[in-house]
Amino acid sequence: MTSDPLWLYDTTLRDGAQREGISLSLDDKLRIARQLDHLGIPFIEGGWPGANPKDVQFFWHLRENPLTQAEVVAFCATRRPHRRAAEEKMLEPILAAGTRWVTIFGKSWDLHVTEGLKTTLDENLAMIADTIEFLSSQGRRVIYDAEHWFDGYGDNPAYALETLKTAREAGAEWLVLCDTNGGTLPDRVGAIAQEVKDALGEGNCLGIHTHNDSGTAVANALAAVQAGARMVQGTINGYGERCGNANLCTLIPNLQVKLGYNCISETQLGSLSETSRLISEMVNLAPDDHAPFVGLSAFAHKGGIHVSAVQRNPRTYEHIDPAVVGNRRRIVISEQAGISNVLEKARRFGLDLDRQHPLSREILARLKTLEHEGYQFEAAEASFELLIREALEQRRSRFELKGFDVFCRTDSAAWDETMSSQSLATVKLTVDGQEMLTAAEGNGPVSALDAALRKALIPFYPVIAQFHLTDYKVRILDGRAGTSAKTRVLVESSNGRDRWTTVGVSVNIIEASYQAVVEALEYGLLLEDQYQPLGEPSRC
Amino acid sequence: MTSDPLWLYDTTLRDGAQREGISLSLDDKLRIARQLDHLGIPFIEGGWPGANPKDVQFFWHLRENPLTQAEVVAFCATRRPHRRAAEEKMLEPILAAGTRWVTIFGKSWDLHVTEGLKTTLDENLAMIADTIEFLSSQGRRVIYDAEHWFDGYGDNPAYALETLKTAREAGAEWLVLCDTNGGTLPDRVGAIAQEVKDALGEGNCLGIHTHNDSGTAVANALAAVQAGARMVQGTINGYGERCGNANLCTLIPNLQVKLGYNCISETQLGSLSETSRLISEMVNLAPDDHAPFVGLSAFAHKGGIHVSAVQRNPRTYEHIDPAVVGNRRRIVISEQAGISNVLEKARRFGLDLDRQHPLSREILARLKTLEHEGYQFEAAEASFELLIREALEQRRSRFELKGFDVFCRTDSAAWDETMSSQSLATVKLTVDGQEMLTAAEGNGPVSALDAALRKALIPFYPVIAQFHLTDYKVRILDGRAGTSAKTRVLVESSNGRDRWTTVGVSVNIIEASYQAVVEALEYGLLLEDQYQPLGEPSRC
Repeated sequence: MTSDPLWLYDTTLRDGAQREGISLSLDDKLRIARQLDHLGIPFIEGGWPGANPKDVQFFWHLRENPLTQAEVVAFCATRRPHRRAAEEKMLEPILAAGTRWVTIFGKSWDLHVTEGLKTTLDENLAMIADTIEFLSSQGRRVIYDAEHWFDGYGDNPAYALETLKTAREAGAEWLVLCDTNGGTLPDRVGAIAQEVKDALGEGNCLGIHTHNDSGTAVANALAAVQAGARMVQGTINGYGERCGNANLCTLIPNLQVKLGYNCISETQLGSLSETSRLISEMVNLAPDDHAPFVGLSAFAHKGGIHVSAVQRNPRTYEHIDPAVVGNRRRIVISEQAGISNVLEKARRFGLDLDRQHPLSREILARLKTLEHEGYQFEAAEASFELLIREALEQRRSRFELKGFDVFCRTDSAAWDETMSSQSLATVKLTVDGQEMLTAAEGNGPVSALDAALRKALIPFYPVIAQFHLTDYKVRILDGRAGTSAKTRVLVESSNGRDRWTTVGVSVNIIEASYQAVVEALEYGLLLEDQYQPLGEPSRC
Repeated sequence: MTSDPLWLYDTTLRDGAQREGISLSLDDKLRIARQLDHLGIPFIEGGWPGANPKDVQFFWHLRENPLTQAEVVAFCATRRPHRRAAEEKMLEPILAAGTRWVTIFGKSWDLHVTEGLKTTLDENLAMIADTIEFLSSQGRRVIYDAEHWFDGYGDNPAYALETLKTAREAGAEWLVLCDTNGGTLPDRVGAIAQEVKDALGEGNCLGIHTHNDSGTAVANALAAVQAGARMVQGTINGYGERCGNANLCTLIPNLQVKLGYNCISETQLGSLSETSRLISEMVNLAPDDHAPFVGLSAFAHKGGIHVSAVQRNPRTYEHIDPAVVGNRRRIVISEQAGISNVLEKARRFGLDLDRQHPLSREILARLKTLEHEGYQFEAAEASFELLIREALEQRRSRFELKGFDVFCRTDSAAWDETMSSQSLATVKLTVDGQEMLTAAEGNGPVSALDAALRKALIPFYPVIAQFHLTDYKVRILDGRAGTSAKTRVLVESSNGRDRWTTVGVSVNIIEASYQAVVEALEYGLLLEDQYQPLGEPSRC
């Protein structure tokens, strides 16, 4: 354990945004920067000003409305061959960005100098020196990213070291070893970082930037830190080109909780899971439930033995306390569920149930029967809560279904071009003793059915108009039975405040969807009841 | 570099299946086992026979229909305290499974012995010895999984080592160090593996089993191998509880291509990407496009400098040759990769098409439009062949659809118990100038539609009676659009001789299914044409 300070450097806004599927607006970038600032990241790489108008505006905006504590860093290449940095157009918007810190990347690998830049090894050194000296002369503090460092060092260590020494002598305060192609394994990263430290005669100026092409980006960063690097670059949720960058949501707890480095405050660390989820929402990618430390499943327990042991002593099955990173333990309901899982869930739902309760085993038996039929409650906690409430006679039926019809018609002159189709659903049900018969159209049979159901219920429960489906998943349980196979449908719903998931199973996909949609509405209404315990506020 | 043999041990079917969202049928398990066998994995952990009927049947089935080369391994705990292994009921199904190899897991951590098993440290040693000796006496070869090894060794190294020595002396051929809670970092895993090797006086019997809770499961396994471990346990795609197990799709290329160990043949390594995708289909989880080595984006280049550089010299931006793991370079903007793909496919279908053919670009454009709409031809080659034939005017239309109706009615007195439902489909089409209007019933809308379609076509194409659907998969393409989301249906069909897959996409699941079913019938007829080139056999 150590208490050395370690500098985190986030490049979600630049390298992270290279990930296929991410496309950030100016507003997205600003919101993410504020989130990172809030998390306590000291260096935030904002982009390459000049590369596009958005990045110019980003820096301009942050000059007007600065962050609380983070340094926003502008990113750029060294000047082009055979020019003078002072006359290099590319560097003008970097200075105009007005940041205190600038990151300049340059070539470490002779192959890239001769084949990529098509210049001489000496000119590359001149480009590094001139660019850094010029920016320093303009009052900028410089971080030097040594691109393709590990490949370059492997092919020509003397030259690679020469580029680093040149950058350092020209005034770079940090030398960052980049594994640009992500092909290096941890033992080699550690050994090379050590060799660099020895060759330079100092290590405190070293940083590490890794990619996940070998599945070891986090371990590579840790190996460099353990060899003396004191700046760690990465992205939130490991976003980045190809297989992504080193994931800061994994690195930070490893560095801080396991290895004892000072990175961010305890409170900030406690907001890590929330930050991960918020940023995944900002970039519009589904969160990775299985992400270390911050994922929804990172502290999920399935088996019965696990559950009782972890309740007695969390160390038995948890490598850290989930609260430290703002996550929480989750007991998963599944086929392997024991009675303790059921009790734990019931407790969390605020239901009075203990091991001695005669209904506990009954619920477990019902759970196992349903799971055998293909229901799956580990992903559908709302349906499971309704099941427990039903056994406890605490489930309030909102309506009684009499039946529904779904009709789909498709007409086509030429099938694949001019097909026209319509779906119509009718639903008959009793609400508060009143019989309702409604009909609605939709894109397909399930959306028509959903619409008809809402139409019947909204007059009685207007709040249903605020519920919406946020996800809809279908799994064919035994594909080998062909089109007669059993279908499981999971529906995720939201009221803008909470999210919940319900499940339905049937050989008929429309019925399975109906079950899940009905439980979603019922559970949403249950949440509404619980959120209004105080009644109307009294008028003064 | 080394050429030491290294033994891979796959636990996708046991530890992998613990991942939330995975629920495997017997048939799924058998198909995955055959896929792993095909990949060349020498040890395949099949499950815990006795824990559930499915696992018993799995081993029984493989005794009747053995794998080509892999050893299927049964998994179980040591006997319970204060019994005799020979009288332990739990071990009976393990022997009945009839495998040559058995994996027994036992406690290494004193905390788990006293708090979990609630027995003495000595009794735990007796449990390990007795269980292994008994199984050996019954002719089984034993792998010993030292559960919670690293935590146990941290707390009480002398006792932890004692458990390993006990297992070894009792006859275990492999001692597997398990990081059950996944909290250990690579440097510590390496150092401890080295200490164990020194303490035992041998290292070739050591294995490593890691979990990804710290984001370093792969690096941890590598560290152990570099310290001398010679068995590596993991799962395909890193499936597993919480944050998953060590990902074999990442480990295998790291071990074999980067570190030079012998794991599987070159041909088998070349099927790694396909195996990863097939198994993700079998467990019905979307493949991770960003997975190292095997992901769709693992070798993706985003145009510009990268692309021309990588085409001149792949080393500049690729850490390995993607073909080695059966993946391919993907140029995200350029159409170049696409054209070769089309030509390659056409060649494979025996169709005459080359780069100069004016239709090549037309087909590519149509392909891109359809893929943008959500079609996926990688898994539906039959549909892709029909698409190419259509462009070449070699597609023979068998019938013309006029339209179809589907009607589903559900009546329920009490919803979940006495629901009764019926699905009815009518289809109107023209075959050989003759108009057909047929109706059929089914379990659900899709099976009714399938039945009506066959009824209309069988009088003209009696061979259709021999076609049957062997698999039916549904994926919602944009779950966030709720019940209005687009649906992709993949249908696999067979005529008893060949199997083929077709695809349909629509916001209406019934239409998507219809498209896929129609193409399946058409492609089946095409195969029949090709299989009868000789006409009727002549009568003597």
